[in-house]
Amino acid sequence: MPNAWDVASARVFEEAGFPAVATSSGGVAVALGYRDGQNISRREMVDAVARIARVLTVPLSADMEAGYGNTEHEIEEMTKEIISAGAVGLNIEDSTGNREKPLTDIEEQIEKLKVIRRTADSMDFPIFINARTDAFLHVSNDRISEVIRRANSYKQAGADCIYAFGVLDPQPIAELVKSIDHPINIRAGRGSPTISELEKLGVARASLATGPVCASLGYLKKVAMEIHGSGTYSNLLACAISYDELNKLATPKEI
Amino acid sequence: MPNAWDVASARVFEEAGFPAVATSSGGVAVALGYRDGQNISRREMVDAVARIARVLTVPLSADMEAGYGNTEHEIEEMTKEIISAGAVGLNIEDSTGNREKPLTDIEEQIEKLKVIRRTADSMDFPIFINARTDAFLHVSNDRISEVIRRANSYKQAGADCIYAFGVLDPQPIAELVKSIDHPINIRAGRGSPTISELEKLGVARASLATGPVCASLGYLKKVAMEIHGSGTYSNLLACAISYDELNKLATPKEI
Repeated sequence: MPNAWDVASARVFEEAGFPAVATSSGGVAVALGYRDGQNISRREMVDAVARIARVLTVPLSADMEAGYGNTEHEIEEMTKEIISAGAVGLNIEDSTGNREKPLTDIEEQIEKLKVIRRTADSMDFPIFINARTDAFLHVSNDRISEVIRRANSYKQAGADCIYAFGVLDPQPIAELVKSIDHPINIRAGRGSPTISELEKLGVARASLATGPVCASLGYLKKVAMEIHGSGTYSNLLACAISYDELNKLATPKEI
Repeated sequence: MPNAWDVASARVFEEAGFPAVATSSGGVAVALGYRDGQNISRREMVDAVARIARVLTVPLSADMEAGYGNTEHEIEEMTKEIISAGAVGLNIEDSTGNREKPLTDIEEQIEKLKVIRRTADSMDFPIFINARTDAFLHVSNDRISEVIRRANSYKQAGADCIYAFGVLDPQPIAELVKSIDHPINIRAGRGSPTISELEKLGVARASLATGPVCASLGYLKKVAMEIHGSGTYSNLLACAISYDELNKLATPKEI
């Protein structure tokens, strides 16, 4: 699952052949001038999702961080809004952003997931819930057990897939796949097995998270430094798309 | 003058050391899902400029295409809005987007420039007007003369700089510099002299136009094709910025 941050990046992934695209909350936020971690408003995040969904022809999953709210009403509204925006699925995570207490209580997260499922059901919409747990990052002892415990609870609460964030090594990935009777999502990219190795390990879905936006901006940095330094255009031109190709990214893929 | 399309790209240029940043109308439009050429609304373009200006510490010039309107009232509103959004200058071009009649009548363009200057003066704001003429692209006979004629008129009407779009060869660039007693802007990048060659020719300002967004998306295409193809991360990781560096692009440069 490649993670986009605007219409152009989403369309690049679609043109490359990906059958679905997700957003990266970090990418969307920084492109609009906010740090990652729910500093962007729900309204602006939903608007970004709507802009992408308007042009993309493949399904779009929206990274909605911790849901931009905690009350039942807020989670209902968020769910209605992203369905109306055109997303077919969402990521919802159990990080709080609070250093003292980095993980949401499991019961609270179960409640959030149930509200999302119930709200989508009330709209007759089969939303795909990718329930992310950050337990592996925040629990110190026996963290794989905590990931499994949360995964099983989130599955019961209506999640379609479990995103075990931060688990990168083959051994714990294999353990999760064996212990959780549900599709598993792993963050792919730096430090992770390749896509085919993840497939062999039984991983159902791989997310690139902020990888693509960091790659794209890293390349832009090279372009910028060359022009500011030597005043030449090697990186600017090395792999550039044409102006026509740029404009085609603003319109739906021609089939 | 490097052309950005969102907060992150503008901040990359600022971090690379550029003393000012401009927007690329094409980049902003496509990122938000519109083709270049005034298909985006004035509101959405101004909002994009405001998002960038909120975080950028160096001056920002906004590419406002043909002004998103033709009446005096529309040009006044546009001018007020981009000044309020935080831009210190703008590009205003004489292309109509109409194939039958690609160039705005010179008198009409003079009027637009005067309205911009008058509106900015009424706000005591010394807006920097970069008056772009597309005459070189659209006139068939003696096009350099038409560029010069328009340049001199636009200067009289209050332009601070003349952007002679489409002029890429050293000989006509030198001719423009010699014949126009005003700063000249040239589009740099594919097909143009290097930045230091442009300086030697007497060019005051170089714009990269859609070059950087096309470079950045071209690199993302390489990243996407590699992951979709071999499932590996060489391009994803080759020059990526870190997650911390990504988040720093959302906040003002630390001085």
